[in-house]
Amino acid sequence: MKQSTHTLEIATRGPGLYEFTSTITQWVSRQNIQTGLLTVFCRHTSASLLIQENADPTVRHDIQAYFDRLAPEHGPYAHNSEGPDDMPAHLKTVLTQVHLSIPVINGSPTLGTWQGIYLFEHRTRPHRREIALHLIGE
Amino acid sequence: MKQSTHTLEIATRGPGLYEFTSTITQWVSRQNIQTGLLTVFCRHTSASLLIQENADPTVRHDIQAYFDRLAPEHGPYAHNSEGPDDMPAHLKTVLTQVHLSIPVINGSPTLGTWQGIYLFEHRTRPHRREIALHLIGE
Amino acid sequence: MKQSTHTLEIATRGPGLYEFTSTITQWVSRQNIQTGLLTVFCRHTSASLLIQENADPTVRHDIQAYFDRLAPEHGPYAHNSEGPDDMPAHLKTVLTQVHLSIPVINGSPTLGTWQGIYLFEHRTRPHRREIALHLIGE
Repeated sequence: MKQSTHTLEIATRGPGLYEFTSTITQWVSRQNIQTGLLTVFCRHTSASLLIQENADPTVRHDIQAYFDRLAPEHGPYAHNSEGPDDMPAHLKTVLTQVHLSIPVINGSPTLGTWQGIYLFEHRTRPHRREIALHLIGE
Repeated sequence: MKQSTHTLEIATRGPGLYEFTSTITQWVSRQNIQTGLLTVFCRHTSASLLIQENADPTVRHDIQAYFDRLAPEHGPYAHNSEGPDDMPAHLKTVLTQVHLSIPVINGSPTLGTWQGIYLFEHRTRPHRREIALHLIGE
Repeated sequence: MKQSTHTLEIATRGPGLYEFTSTITQWVSRQNIQTGLLTVFCRHTSASLLIQENADPTVRHDIQAYFDRLAPEHGPYAHNSEGPDDMPAHLKTVLTQVHLSIPVINGSPTLGTWQGIYLFEHRTRPHRREIALHLIGE
């Protein structure tokens, strides 16, 4: 049994879903672990993670537009020190995921056919987001 | 230290919460692992997982009705190629869980008294859903 | 490779976010594991977990107020046997997290600078909440 860890940086240029499935699967394939557990952890409070459909791009568009309606700018927020996108970014993070854990089977995360791994950026200005990876197995 | 993996199939007949706690706990009990970590992973983008009250069935009814209001059919969605339940199914999946990780203590997932594990089916038509299980421990 | 488990109890006095980051990091530091995976699991269906900003307390205030609007008391719920805060508590739990998994690097959970770990209590009356911890690594 062994472990591997790594930190990815993803540069974002405004709100939206940034797929990084292939970065993840390529990193896993290099660790020489056939069976194990992969954990993906986002080290931020205004960007998050999700697994969603990787086929039709309108799904990503609709997800982003939906969360803009669900946690709108200019709501009755006390916290707005960093601008109108600040508090909605925290709320969208709480409503989605900070971490993903995916079993690894035959050397690859056991994602379904239509599942892609996305960073969900909620802030307007460009950011560099750190994603910690952990893999345990053999 | 050792690992076990397994894939469950759950047949669904329309939207709702399908409990499979006993299937999980029975599988765990057969792996001969006293202390460890169980991960349950749903390989789909229009069905999800959650842990909720297993006593009063009205809780499940209210959860399902609530998500129907929160992510309604016939919203302003660009993606509707598979019918009116298509995009709401993706949104409900994003708002709940794709994976659950539960510590195993004394050979059993350490669920609270009232916690059951559910597949939350969001599509109207029958589906066969694949759930990947991973257990590590000793 | 080794494992540690522990159960925390957190006493709550009404709805809100209770930070317990330092309890977690201190427990991890005592397990003598440099690299691993920490899992935090909430054994309840009316309280949940989240990772959010630990700096400005108005963020916590806004999160709590937002969820009160998103899952209000006196909604069209069938389940209200324990009072008006009962069903909203279940819904807020479903919309947030029951478990958190965080990679451990250099003997500490690899939280970002602004990330704190919170118990999100949704019930009005005081409760004692059990949080199970699991750590695997070496």
